[in-house]
Amino acid sequence: MQLSERQEKIIDIVKENQPITSEAIASMLKLTRSTLRPDLAILTMSGILDARPKVGYFYTGKTSLSYISEKIKKIKVSDIKSVPVVVDEAISIYDAIVLMFIEDVGSIYVTSKGLLSGVVSRKDFLRNAIGGIDLNKMPIGMIMTRMPNIVYVEPEDSILDAAIKLIDHEIDSLPVIEEDKEAKGYKVLGRITKTTITGLFVELGKND
Amino acid sequence: MQLSERQEKIIDIVKENQPITSEAIASMLKLTRSTLRPDLAILTMSGILDARPKVGYFYTGKTSLSYISEKIKKIKVSDIKSVPVVVDEAISIYDAIVLMFIEDVGSIYVTSKGLLSGVVSRKDFLRNAIGGIDLNKMPIGMIMTRMPNIVYVEPEDSILDAAIKLIDHEIDSLPVIEEDKEAKGYKVLGRITKTTITGLFVELGKND
Repeated sequence: MQLSERQEKIIDIVKENQPITSEAIASMLKLTRSTLRPDLAILTMSGILDARPKVGYFYTGKTSLSYISEKIKKIKVSDIKSVPVVVDEAISIYDAIVLMFIEDVGSIYVTSKGLLSGVVSRKDFLRNAIGGIDLNKMPIGMIMTRMPNIVYVEPEDSILDAAIKLIDHEIDSLPVIEEDKEAKGYKVLGRITKTTITGLFVELGKND
Repeated sequence: MQLSERQEKIIDIVKENQPITSEAIASMLKLTRSTLRPDLAILTMSGILDARPKVGYFYTGKTSLSYISEKIKKIKVSDIKSVPVVVDEAISIYDAIVLMFIEDVGSIYVTSKGLLSGVVSRKDFLRNAIGGIDLNKMPIGMIMTRMPNIVYVEPEDSILDAAIKLIDHEIDSLPVIEEDKEAKGYKVLGRITKTTITGLFVELGKND
């Protein structure tokens, strides 16, 4: 939304003098109230100003960035999750690395009896690969991050909350899980990675 | 921007009948032109409709998503690039991996006489680590991606273009470079990664 010079001036006046009536704004700009009416309507309907009857106009602090924020908060994890790569806890580290290359993913989820038990990333593999361990004999369960230390998201979480978890915990991937109350554990439904977020960023940015 | 029911109706009418005059819109809605004037002003100034004198109103196809797109396109690589981790081509693969863990980055840039000559990622290291190569003896130059196969960005590029390159080339990191015409090469100024993009996404989303 491109504001006119006069609309920008109105915003500045309201910021400094709020609450302020339309008469007062008109007098400061040396204009009539009816000249200002369309501008005030636009600023109010776009949410930049708030009008309270018998009080006047307030500045809400909302800018075009608010639209971005509103849009991002509405996107759910379930809307854009990708397919997870899941292995059983008994697989060897070597086989898991090979699978990671075949599937071209940065993290693998590990399950025991179908329920999430661990997560392993490229970084975990690399740390152990240079540590001189015999990768063929060691099961993946030896090096994975285990529950309850796994950071995860649920399908109804917002994608913004998922992105915040990726940044705050300095991880590349989040399993999308669903609780299985009977089995007392979590099923893996999908994954959200920094690639997912970057892809969404591109979609939002390309939109014309 | 929250549109009223009447404004949504106007958009639908324009979409189906463009170009259409304000008289024609008013008659379809059984309203007077002066009642419609503020609505049409809002829809035109917000960029949703376009008005051409003596022709009528057109639908531009712009929605609130356009604001996101406009904002994202204005952010430059130089605004948010991070500090690069740079090593000389003579370093061993093992030492480079150790440095990668110390600095906690997913990619390292390699230079020769101060100019960019290669890029190595965690994935490249892992591929070689499980390949049974003696990592201590092999220089990093043996496994890195070399110019001219390195995908890079320049400081004035938009962050959207950087994100598109990360997705299209399926890479995790882009060196930010500057041409050194005298030395006939590129200096490394920074890096843009999927973490950079995810962090920016969080900033945009948190903005209230």
